[in-house]
Amino acid sequence: MIIVFKKGTEKENIANVQKKLESYGFKVHLSEGVETTIMGAIGDESTLRDKPLSSFPGVEKVVPIVKPYKLVSKDFRKEDTVIDVKGIKLGGGNVVVMAGPCSVEGRDMLFEIAGRASKAGAKILRGGAFKPRTSPYAFQGLGEEGLKYLREAADAHGMLVITELMDPRDIDLICKYTDIIQIGARNMQNFRLLRDLGELRKPVMLKRGLCATMKELLMAAEYVAAGGNNEIILCERGIRTFETETRNTLDLSAIPVLKSLTHLPVVADPSHGTGRRDCILPMSQAAVAAGADGIIVEVHNCPEEAMSDGDQSILPDDFDILMKRIDIIAQTIGKTLNK
Amino acid sequence: MIIVFKKGTEKENIANVQKKLESYGFKVHLSEGVETTIMGAIGDESTLRDKPLSSFPGVEKVVPIVKPYKLVSKDFRKEDTVIDVKGIKLGGGNVVVMAGPCSVEGRDMLFEIAGRASKAGAKILRGGAFKPRTSPYAFQGLGEEGLKYLREAADAHGMLVITELMDPRDIDLICKYTDIIQIGARNMQNFRLLRDLGELRKPVMLKRGLCATMKELLMAAEYVAAGGNNEIILCERGIRTFETETRNTLDLSAIPVLKSLTHLPVVADPSHGTGRRDCILPMSQAAVAAGADGIIVEVHNCPEEAMSDGDQSILPDDFDILMKRIDIIAQTIGKTLNK
Amino acid sequence: MIIVFKKGTEKENIANVQKKLESYGFKVHLSEGVETTIMGAIGDESTLRDKPLSSFPGVEKVVPIVKPYKLVSKDFRKEDTVIDVKGIKLGGGNVVVMAGPCSVEGRDMLFEIAGRASKAGAKILRGGAFKPRTSPYAFQGLGEEGLKYLREAADAHGMLVITELMDPRDIDLICKYTDIIQIGARNMQNFRLLRDLGELRKPVMLKRGLCATMKELLMAAEYVAAGGNNEIILCERGIRTFETETRNTLDLSAIPVLKSLTHLPVVADPSHGTGRRDCILPMSQAAVAAGADGIIVEVHNCPEEAMSDGDQSILPDDFDILMKRIDIIAQTIGKTLNK
Amino acid sequence: MIIVFKKGTEKENIANVQKKLESYGFKVHLSEGVETTIMGAIGDESTLRDKPLSSFPGVEKVVPIVKPYKLVSKDFRKEDTVIDVKGIKLGGGNVVVMAGPCSVEGRDMLFEIAGRASKAGAKILRGGAFKPRTSPYAFQGLGEEGLKYLREAADAHGMLVITELMDPRDIDLICKYTDIIQIGARNMQNFRLLRDLGELRKPVMLKRGLCATMKELLMAAEYVAAGGNNEIILCERGIRTFETETRNTLDLSAIPVLKSLTHLPVVADPSHGTGRRDCILPMSQAAVAAGADGIIVEVHNCPEEAMSDGDQSILPDDFDILMKRIDIIAQTIGKTLNK
Repeated sequence: MIIVFKKGTEKENIANVQKKLESYGFKVHLSEGVETTIMGAIGDESTLRDKPLSSFPGVEKVVPIVKPYKLVSKDFRKEDTVIDVKGIKLGGGNVVVMAGPCSVEGRDMLFEIAGRASKAGAKILRGGAFKPRTSPYAFQGLGEEGLKYLREAADAHGMLVITELMDPRDIDLICKYTDIIQIGARNMQNFRLLRDLGELRKPVMLKRGLCATMKELLMAAEYVAAGGNNEIILCERGIRTFETETRNTLDLSAIPVLKSLTHLPVVADPSHGTGRRDCILPMSQAAVAAGADGIIVEVHNCPEEAMSDGDQSILPDDFDILMKRIDIIAQTIGKTLNK
Repeated sequence: MIIVFKKGTEKENIANVQKKLESYGFKVHLSEGVETTIMGAIGDESTLRDKPLSSFPGVEKVVPIVKPYKLVSKDFRKEDTVIDVKGIKLGGGNVVVMAGPCSVEGRDMLFEIAGRASKAGAKILRGGAFKPRTSPYAFQGLGEEGLKYLREAADAHGMLVITELMDPRDIDLICKYTDIIQIGARNMQNFRLLRDLGELRKPVMLKRGLCATMKELLMAAEYVAAGGNNEIILCERGIRTFETETRNTLDLSAIPVLKSLTHLPVVADPSHGTGRRDCILPMSQAAVAAGADGIIVEVHNCPEEAMSDGDQSILPDDFDILMKRIDIIAQTIGKTLNK
Repeated sequence: MIIVFKKGTEKENIANVQKKLESYGFKVHLSEGVETTIMGAIGDESTLRDKPLSSFPGVEKVVPIVKPYKLVSKDFRKEDTVIDVKGIKLGGGNVVVMAGPCSVEGRDMLFEIAGRASKAGAKILRGGAFKPRTSPYAFQGLGEEGLKYLREAADAHGMLVITELMDPRDIDLICKYTDIIQIGARNMQNFRLLRDLGELRKPVMLKRGLCATMKELLMAAEYVAAGGNNEIILCERGIRTFETETRNTLDLSAIPVLKSLTHLPVVADPSHGTGRRDCILPMSQAAVAAGADGIIVEVHNCPEEAMSDGDQSILPDDFDILMKRIDIIAQTIGKTLNK
Repeated sequence: MIIVFKKGTEKENIANVQKKLESYGFKVHLSEGVETTIMGAIGDESTLRDKPLSSFPGVEKVVPIVKPYKLVSKDFRKEDTVIDVKGIKLGGGNVVVMAGPCSVEGRDMLFEIAGRASKAGAKILRGGAFKPRTSPYAFQGLGEEGLKYLREAADAHGMLVITELMDPRDIDLICKYTDIIQIGARNMQNFRLLRDLGELRKPVMLKRGLCATMKELLMAAEYVAAGGNNEIILCERGIRTFETETRNTLDLSAIPVLKSLTHLPVVADPSHGTGRRDCILPMSQAAVAAGADGIIVEVHNCPEEAMSDGDQSILPDDFDILMKRIDIIAQTIGKTLNK
């Protein structure tokens, strides 16, 4: 850690910080330049992160040097993590597609969509059983019934299930039906829940919070990893910006950046990331071209009747085109669509 | 609700939307202009908000007219809500100050800070017992022990307690010790938790999420109110922007805007809102000058030793000055500091 | 335009607005719902946009219906604009690549880079002669000398020149050397300059401002088109968000969205959009996969010695790979790389 | 400057950076920690800022230590700059109010507004003669005629004139009529224009760009100061965020933060900062309470008829209340309203 002092700081104040750092077991190196005095603290920076060093008189700023996450970083593990769920591989050179309706609305519609998605090459069935809605008066999901339909439809078509866990009290229920636990953007920094996930032995897909930096997403993954669960998938799903033409701004540069920082698989969600049906095809192509290890896409056979988010689902026919195109794009950049 | 059609949309597509709206029980009014065709749907808009109308061919955009929240709106209730907690009044013409350390670190420090804060006029003692930290390796709070100290220190000085509820599994525990339940920015859209709060009969302070719009904050309050709990305080605590000199950008304009939209009390948190000790005094003054019904401020007798957020706490001596100044500012704009 | 009134607005106030609208020559339609009264103003909305209707007592909000831009909209012209500059075609099904150093640093380096870029298939040579730098103490460009080198290097390799116009006083100078005038993000809303551009008969590439919405970018293009210059290329080059891992957030969803709203060509700038060399290859691929009509990329043969922005240039060898990959990606989505 | 290397960087790569730094005349200090190797470059950091050090293999990040601005910083000059314009003092303990219509619409209206504003205590008359409008079809100002009216109205009431310079070709014209040159948010980083301003001997008010950081605002001021013009006023006028209830988000924390970094006066613009008439009074009070050296407010005697921005002007009667309140607030924090 580097401590930068204000110009003209008295020696006594500098000495106070030095004494404090030494009391924490750090070696201190002082460098007095023409413009400024800076102090380097040599030791395990992670123990220092918590200390209010900038509260000391004379300190202008404190500059951390080491990344605040460890287990999930590429420094810790050079090779890509490949998560194997019942034979479906996420990470490494694989591209995997998760598809399905926003929310599970009924058994028949789900089987139909699963059939079409599976036939086109999707390996994982997505669908919400508990829907977090901004309005208390909106459709809130089918609950356990929805989970059952998901499991049945996935099994019938040889797919895996991914569905969202929203409340710690539902952990057992969700785990009973799902293969991968999805943590939504709003829970990305629900640290108690992240701790609970660390103790499970089931893969977790962490969606980036609406206003979470990439570093915060990695810190959230670190929480899960610190508990012993290393099967974590990161998902870029759009951040909030001033732009209003799209629901969110899908930050595809997060894909190459995250992949340079972590060994975990990174996927993208063009449906929630844009909130517009006409963006799903181009942004799915773009996500794979940017190096995503997969995409998660909303598919609905009758969006006009969807009970939530119909505006951001594509039709099965368009999904067929999508799959064909990303197959070629994946190959072009040296990856393989798992279909 | 207004539906705007794309230029050149075929009559059949327009008729389809009309038929759908009528099937929902709406009266439809069509207006064909030179440039565009628009359709007004007359009826209870809240039942329409959920329908994917923009999924219909030809629809360019759907414009909601009515506010999506009801119980918390000024249209529903004209007079300010005044929340009376053991004789301390929040809302109306009152300005109330909540003060205390970021986290409860020990019994002695808490009693000392509570003593100073109370003497200066603070009516509510704040302090965290469970700390949500971005790093899994940081200090996570004293837990129930911290709650006990809070209660004791508050009782000893005739203050109320406000502390954060972070997990639905802690509801009973938190309720046992606190007078006001604080919901942190990260849980503002934890809709299951909001439902639980609606069933309690204890005041709730909802902090605005880091990237939540004012409308979303009001929708979150609507969740609580819809459950039957009307004692809700809104708290502006900074939003995330591109600026990095401050931790967040304290959006003080949220105070007059929220107060024009809702009858609920609105307070501000200059400590978390700026993350800088040197901003707490000026931004506390500004919050009261902007019409806040109160402020929540971190006070610490030794910020250099604070176990969390020492950088954004002020010293008791500075808190004395703060209280004197906001007393005059409150009077200048026709309000009364409850001291 | 729709005017929404506050609940309980007096009839007199509603009548005042109606009278005003009628005095402007609008037909007025009033709809009194249970919750709210709304008024539709039928006529040429563009003449109304300027009027402070929300200043009238009782008005809650004013909702514009018609897009504020006209000439550049897809409603005005259905087919893609194809700009033909000396035989190089921008727009339509073409993908065109602009490449070169951030700033022109010397004749030799420029010829070398132009040679490599041209050989790989780039058709347009980019390079700055006047550099807008955030520090007054930084390298500010070679000026006219740089423009000469650009022209010579482009001519030597059969390329076009694109370079930035920063000041209205340089219009003649820039026009003497360049084929396409680039307007930087900071000048996107320099309305006086946009007017000047409208009077020229040279293609203009408008870069999206750092905090400009897509609608504002289209409005800026409308300024140029309103002056009579229809050869406008739009360029997504990253917007400012809270994320700091990348210099800006390249908003690739702007590509499909803009292309749904306008007939003008849309290109992307992954160099400025990310500020990171390791993002240029993946984000160039992604831009083309998202449907961009071209990309503009910084290429430098020795980034460590670059006088500006070396951190966001790629090496000629990597540029070769980039061109091969986007060629396939373009074909996959039915477009043709102009190489 | 501190250079942080990637874990496991080869010694040769580290040596390369060291050699380069030494070739620039820097002394180098290397510190090899357990986790990471960092290198300190000791010398005049400003000469290094431009070099693409992060382009060198092995470099993870480059951390600047010294502030990138100098002349405008508090380190350079401890005491507040007080700008004296014909006896009106800006900066120091003074609070000065600038008021007037958004745009000059006619001689009579301007004289009337100037009279009311002056009587209430405003010392500087504001008003636009050239209006930068987002639409090419909107009212664009009266031009020189407007400037004349401004000068006459100000002189008639013993006020100063502030008006916006939008184009370098208007410098002489604007200087002929104004006392203070206003640079709008969109021109804050028009570096050529800033250079021109540096050569004038007239005070300049720089408005913060819509998406400019405080550091960038200070860098813009540095441009002017580097040219020799030290009479610079900074103006916070709202930044762009995701919030849509207000036109911009007025960042009042910029006031204490800027005042801790620079000796220049800092004022706030609640009219443009919020875009809402009902926010002007509370946010003006808040700006002064936060320590602003002044405010600039739009006042209009008939906002319903205003030709631009009527929605964000207050009435003369409300302006009277505003002046009375900020007088008391200024005194409460030890400042004096110049009235």
